[in-house]
Amino acid sequence: MRIEKLAALMEERGFNGALISPGANFYYLTGINIHEAGERLTVLAVNPDGEYHLLAPSLYQNVIGDFPVTFWRDGENPYSKLETIMKELGIRGKVLIENTMRADWLIGIFHSRNSFDPYPLSMLMRELRMRKDEEELRLMQKAAEVVDRVFEEILSWDIIGMTEKELALRIELRIRELSDGISFEPIVASGENGANPHHEPGDRRIRKGDMVILDYGAKWKGYCSDITRTVAIGKPDEKLVEIYEIVKEAQENAFQAVREGIKAKEIDRAARETIARAGYGEYFTHRTGHGLGLDVHEEPYIGPDGEVALERGMTFTIEPGIYVPGLAGVRIEDDVVVVGDKGERLTKANRELIIL
Amino acid sequence: MRIEKLAALMEERGFNGALISPGANFYYLTGINIHEAGERLTVLAVNPDGEYHLLAPSLYQNVIGDFPVTFWRDGENPYSKLETIMKELGIRGKVLIENTMRADWLIGIFHSRNSFDPYPLSMLMRELRMRKDEEELRLMQKAAEVVDRVFEEILSWDIIGMTEKELALRIELRIRELSDGISFEPIVASGENGANPHHEPGDRRIRKGDMVILDYGAKWKGYCSDITRTVAIGKPDEKLVEIYEIVKEAQENAFQAVREGIKAKEIDRAARETIARAGYGEYFTHRTGHGLGLDVHEEPYIGPDGEVALERGMTFTIEPGIYVPGLAGVRIEDDVVVVGDKGERLTKANRELIIL
Repeated sequence: MRIEKLAALMEERGFNGALISPGANFYYLTGINIHEAGERLTVLAVNPDGEYHLLAPSLYQNVIGDFPVTFWRDGENPYSKLETIMKELGIRGKVLIENTMRADWLIGIFHSRNSFDPYPLSMLMRELRMRKDEEELRLMQKAAEVVDRVFEEILSWDIIGMTEKELALRIELRIRELSDGISFEPIVASGENGANPHHEPGDRRIRKGDMVILDYGAKWKGYCSDITRTVAIGKPDEKLVEIYEIVKEAQENAFQAVREGIKAKEIDRAARETIARAGYGEYFTHRTGHGLGLDVHEEPYIGPDGEVALERGMTFTIEPGIYVPGLAGVRIEDDVVVVGDKGERLTKANRELIIL
Repeated sequence: MRIEKLAALMEERGFNGALISPGANFYYLTGINIHEAGERLTVLAVNPDGEYHLLAPSLYQNVIGDFPVTFWRDGENPYSKLETIMKELGIRGKVLIENTMRADWLIGIFHSRNSFDPYPLSMLMRELRMRKDEEELRLMQKAAEVVDRVFEEILSWDIIGMTEKELALRIELRIRELSDGISFEPIVASGENGANPHHEPGDRRIRKGDMVILDYGAKWKGYCSDITRTVAIGKPDEKLVEIYEIVKEAQENAFQAVREGIKAKEIDRAARETIARAGYGEYFTHRTGHGLGLDVHEEPYIGPDGEVALERGMTFTIEPGIYVPGLAGVRIEDDVVVVGDKGERLTKANRELIIL
């Protein structure tokens, strides 16, 4: 059982407990799907002996099945109830905290205890979650097939004249029809907007001469996919073609570097050096990729500081880009799994420059 | 300027600084719209003299305009950069932390400083944000008009036979057409699903005999609305009509209690006592309401522990409900502003029991 594996790791690393708020780790450990906990304290406490207890608002009485739980009602002080649970489980001193827990919860716990030294839970959870088992990989493949299919369909849509927002919405609706929903808000960044890697789709209309970045993902039973393709509208300027080919080469070189035992930063380096050699180093302003699973961003991160040694079953994106302010951006992203002495792409959509 | 007002409050209350991650407070203070910061450290530091500096990933170079900022690149240690900023601004000891900051950021800051005593930022920000000015109220009224209009339209849709998911999606799309988007995922809870106040729309089809809870909201230039109506499909069972009338009365009694100077808990009490007197006290399992503004949940909270004294310009929901497991739920929710010796509803959709 997954909670027991976490407990064993805590024991081994000298942690006295873990406090886990709702999110992917909570779901991974409990199977309980609390979609959105909001501001009401909801915490799973686990000790190194594998004992565990949940504190939850009474609001969730109907969604929590057969699980050891204490409910609290609006008007009660949940922190003193959590304090009782922590005492009973012997949780104090070095305690792991869910990374995405709200700071005010952590401050509340912090102020209700004298002896409390918090560490990020991801230190251990990433070891449990990074290597996907066969069932998890099957779900990730399904999520990847959805985004491949949507890309094929986009190529048949008449996107010239659509606003970025309209195209993003259409992509979102199609993903929702084909899967359990989007893994993040689709990004459509056209023309000069493409130079902002986190551009939000706006009212700009897609027109001739644009490069258009399409970055979107699907969920399948909790597991995420994440793909980016960049298409040209009409025959593109020569410089844009040059940039596209550099990014494509960087993405392929990074992919070819994937194998068991190599550090994540080596994958990043393969992409970064390709782009730097071509003279665009300063325009590649983000990491080469990120792990993918129950979260759309998780370990292992594929950046210059990526010290994780890749293992079979690890899944992550490879998504180098070049962003030239005032002109355009190009990014190409695939989801990749380590299968041994090489990687395998989960997303398989066409990576050649497509002119619409 | 809003940052100066925060600084003055910090000075007055003896705080040595504030660290603010992206979210509604960040937007309120800076006007910079960072939609989703993800896991990369992004923090605005403010000291009681009104000096401030932003730390942000280089990824955001193109979205941050003319603002004092230090960028960090993937591969660099952002915490040591933040440490430098905090030193220069003299931020140590009692420091305010944005409530929704990720716990791992707080832990990172915590471990990089010896003298650091965190407190939730909302203690001060709620004083700044609770009272809306005329311009803010105008935007909230616009957001409320959108959800009123959508309710009118729903009454003309043929919802019998639709799944909850289908209806929720249709509501969402209509809100997106009429506004800047949804303020939260619409809830459609039909029949026995209504007994879970946080039910996620599923594949259950809406059918004769159901009570259907519709809970949704819109955004207008950052400001939220939030409405709930419960409609009956076909002539409802007598007990359901009884429950509906109790909830309606509780909602009206709470609304009538609104006036300047009264404590939030008195509004809650007006609703809670109405429901308890009718014998359903144990089935009203949540607060009567929550503040509303840039966040869909903010101060003042309208619960049994609500010690905030209401002032002119405060905005919040009033949304009592009765949830009978295995049977149904009923909730009626309006957005309300304190205008002096009374409240005014921003949402004005029909509250009578409507049979479709």
